[in-house]
Order: sequence, then C-alpha cells, then structure tokens
Amino acid sequence: MRALTFLASRFVAGDAVDDAIGAVRALNADGLKATLDNLGEDSLTREQALAAAEENLAMLRRIADTGVDCNVSLKLTQIGLAIDPALARDNLTRIVEEAARLKNFVRVDMEGSAWTQKTLDLFYAVHDRYPNMGVVLQAYLRRTQADCRDAVARKARVRLCKGAYKEPADVAFPSKQDVNANYDKCAAILAGAPLPAFATHDDARIEAALKSCDAAGLVKSDYELQMLYGLRPKRWRELRGQGHTVRIYVPYGTHWFPYFYRRIRERKENLLFVARNMFE
Amino acid sequence: MRALTFLASRFVAGDAVDDAIGAVRALNADGLKATLDNLGEDSLTREQALAAAEENLAMLRRIADTGVDCNVSLKLTQIGLAIDPALARDNLTRIVEEAARLKNFVRVDMEGSAWTQKTLDLFYAVHDRYPNMGVVLQAYLRRTQADCRDAVARKARVRLCKGAYKEPADVAFPSKQDVNANYDKCAAILAGAPLPAFATHDDARIEAALKSCDAAGLVKSDYELQMLYGLRPKRWRELRGQGHTVRIYVPYGTHWFPYFYRRIRERKENLLFVARNMFE
Repeated sequence: MRALTFLASRFVAGDAVDDAIGAVRALNADGLKATLDNLGEDSLTREQALAAAEENLAMLRRIADTGVDCNVSLKLTQIGLAIDPALARDNLTRIVEEAARLKNFVRVDMEGSAWTQKTLDLFYAVHDRYPNMGVVLQAYLRRTQADCRDAVARKARVRLCKGAYKEPADVAFPSKQDVNANYDKCAAILAGAPLPAFATHDDARIEAALKSCDAAGLVKSDYELQMLYGLRPKRWRELRGQGHTVRIYVPYGTHWFPYFYRRIRERKENLLFVARNMFE
Repeated sequence: MRALTFLASRFVAGDAVDDAIGAVRALNADGLKATLDNLGEDSLTREQALAAAEENLAMLRRIADTGVDCNVSLKLTQIGLAIDPALARDNLTRIVEEAARLKNFVRVDMEGSAWTQKTLDLFYAVHDRYPNMGVVLQAYLRRTQADCRDAVARKARVRLCKGAYKEPADVAFPSKQDVNANYDKCAAILAGAPLPAFATHDDARIEAALKSCDAAGLVKSDYELQMLYGLRPKRWRELRGQGHTVRIYVPYGTHWFPYFYRRIRERKENLLFVARNMFE
C-alpha cells in the first residue's frame, strides 16, 4: 500500500511511529509542539482494539525516549468503543496511566455524532482519576455550547474544532456561518477551562478565540492554537512567531483512508493538491 | 483524478453514466439485471443536491433511451437530506415521478444509523403516492426486524443487506454471527413483502433466504438476489444459471471514495485486490 499512502503523504507523516517522530522533531526545531495520532478508527475485533492500545503505549514510550515535545491523540473506536465499552475503558485507562507515569498527556479525539455522548461518558469516567487527559468538542454540533460549559465546570481540557463528519441538520448546523458563530461562542466559554486548544485553519476563528482569551485575562501560555499536519505550514510559523503556542496534529500509520477522506471533504483544494502531486 | 479512479475500478463502472450503461449492457447480455448508482452521499450545498437530482433524472432517461434492464439506486443525503429534508423530499418526488412515467423503479439506499429513521420517514411519505420505489434495510441494526414487519404491513419493497457503516454496539450487533442470524430472521419476515431483494455475497445467507421464500410459497419471479459490481461475478452467473433473478448494483461517478472505503472495510481481500492491481 506504499503507493496509495504516497497520495496521502501531504497529511500523513509516514507508516511507522519513527517516521512520525522524525516529522515531530522537525516541527519542534521550528518551535512547534505536536500531538501524534496513530491512524485508525475502525477496530472491528478485540485483537485490533488491543493492538491499537499497545501502539499508543509504544508511542508514549517512544516520545519519552526521544525527548520530543509531543503528546498523543486517539479515537475511542480505535481502542474498542464500537465492540465493547468496557474494553475501550480498560484500554484508555492503561494508556492514560502510562502517560501519567511519563508526565505526558492524552487527547481523546471526537468522532461522528453517534459517538459524542459515549465518548464524553468514557472520557469523564477516566478523567475523574487522571486529569492528564483532554477531549475534543465540535462547534458544528448544536449541543456543543452546553458541552463546553460542562467542561468548564469539570475543569476538563478541551480542543475545539469545527467538526468534519457528515451529520443530520437537527444534530449539526448545516450552514458554515452558523458553525463559525458557534465556534466563536464555544471558544469564549472555553476561555474559562484549563488550557483550551483552538484547532482551526480559519483565521477569523483564531482571531475571535484570541480576543476571548484576552478578555478572560489569559496569557499566551494559557491556551494553544492547533492545526493539522500538511495544512497551512507557513501560518503555523507566523503564529509561533507572534508568540503563541502552536501544536500540530501529526497522524501516521497505514489506516489513513477515513482521515484522508475527511480532509478532502473539508476542502476542495486538498483534492487538487493530491491530483497535482500525481501528475508532477 | 483518473489515476485514483483506476484504483477503484474493480468496484466502480466508470466516471460517466455512459460508462455505466456499457457495463449494464454487458450484464444484461449475461441475463443479469442491474441497478445504477451515481456515487455520492455528501452533498453539502443545495446546488450539489440539485445537481445530484438532475443526474438521477438523466440516468432514468438514459436507461429508457438505451432500453437496458436497469433501475436506479440513490442516497437521500446525496439529494439534500443533510441540508434540508424538504429539499430532499422535493428531489426524491421528482425522481420517482419521472421513474413512474418511464415505468421504472427507484431504490432508496440506506446510510449510517443517524439517517435510518429520517430515511424511512421520507421514503414512506413519498411511497404512499408512488409505489414504484423501495428502500433498504440493514440486518446489522437491532431495530431491523421491526422495520421488516413494518415494510410487510405497508407493502413496501425492501432490499435486505448486512450493513457496512461503523455503528455503536447498542445500535448494531457487533458480532458477525449475530448479524448473520438477524439477516436470516429478517429475510424470513420479508418473504411476506412484495418482491424482496436479498443483497449479500454470503452463500449461507442466500441459502437461508431461498428457504424462507420457498416456505412462504414464493416462486423465482417473486424475489431478487443482489450483489455488488466487482464482487463474485462468477457467482452471479451461477445463480442466474439456477434460474434466480440476479441484479447487480453498478456504481459510477467520481465520488467513489466512501463507497470504495466501505468495500475495503468489509473485506480485507478487496484491499489485496487493489494492491495487487497496482503492482501488476
């Protein structure tokens, strides 16, 4: 599958964890932090879910061994949520325990709306014992302002993104303007939560989030700006140059299909990039 | 995107409707019926949804002009369900009206569980006026036996498949054995509905469905067996040779990414096929 993986190589830092660590080193050299994601959201058997958990444990150890400035992001369906919630909980607990031992942090990614409540339930169940973890909330969901207020009350670290799954109109705002407005409102709420992370490539959203942080009396070390590997690298460095903490989401692995598809779906330009690369 | 499309060419009959009509002609020559699917399930704007509806209308006319033995399958999110249910209903009504005029039939495909009830609601709302349409039910969903009984009561034509989306365990059976057992039970219920279609590549499921049809007193013209373009072509011809009506689902178009991914996810062998094709 190397040839197919090449097509996704703008967005994916390689097949193996050491490819990704190499990419993180380069980011760190530019003053950028990273979060590593072992691609996968489709564990269909207990064996696959356990293997994914082992990979996340190995990632945490590799990060510690190499000393890169990097934490870990994972999806609960990768570690078993679609098979057995108890299995996912056990896997998540082991990963977060190992992260705590290594003084690192685990971000629980958010998936489609069928998983939102299940993800939050499992996140908070483990978070009560291990605060070295955070979750992701998606501004396109109608429920998200309430989830942000809940995160503030429970002192949970949240990454706010717009959301990239196909959702029904009664669950998610269909219009971009509504998503953007909700993003800004959610960002303002999250300025009251510990170390909020604003994950967006939209300059207007970044500006609004920075204003909210400023209004809440936060300084630059109190929040993060996050972007995806392969998208707007020049902008990462500009924001870093302005003194913001910038963290790049670095996916690696062979299960890049759904991730790649969401990136294509979000932005037609991404598809053009792939097409151009193929004919050059 | 032609090079990428090539990778999917086992499962996709080309970019344009005439490519697909060519494939249908070849199937018809072997005594196989077809259903055409213009790939797409991600209309994000009214313009995209309207364009998809126009493509479906054009497909119906092209089928009538060429005289091939073929009906049409479509997804409601392609014609606007994620944007505005009224838009989707209007588009669906226009398509089914045109199909009625041309004495053809429209199959409403089923999508992820966020869409199940919305799809059934819209299907039945239009079906009450236009009986020349059917829907799809997925045996992996826990609700599906009840939906099958409902279809029997409402005299709706149903295609039964296993289901190919990632679903939570409280919504769908996580174990293959449970999905198979539910498929057989659903097939037995649907033997009481008009012209049931059993869509599966699993010989044991076909055998069980045929037994249920036989027990219900159906003859070979009272049901269909369905398979996907590119999967088990030899078996299509065997089943046809035994006198069954066999219909092949023939997708075409440039939006093949999610369809292709579901086929890969269903069966590892499909991935091997793609990889092999790339290196030969």
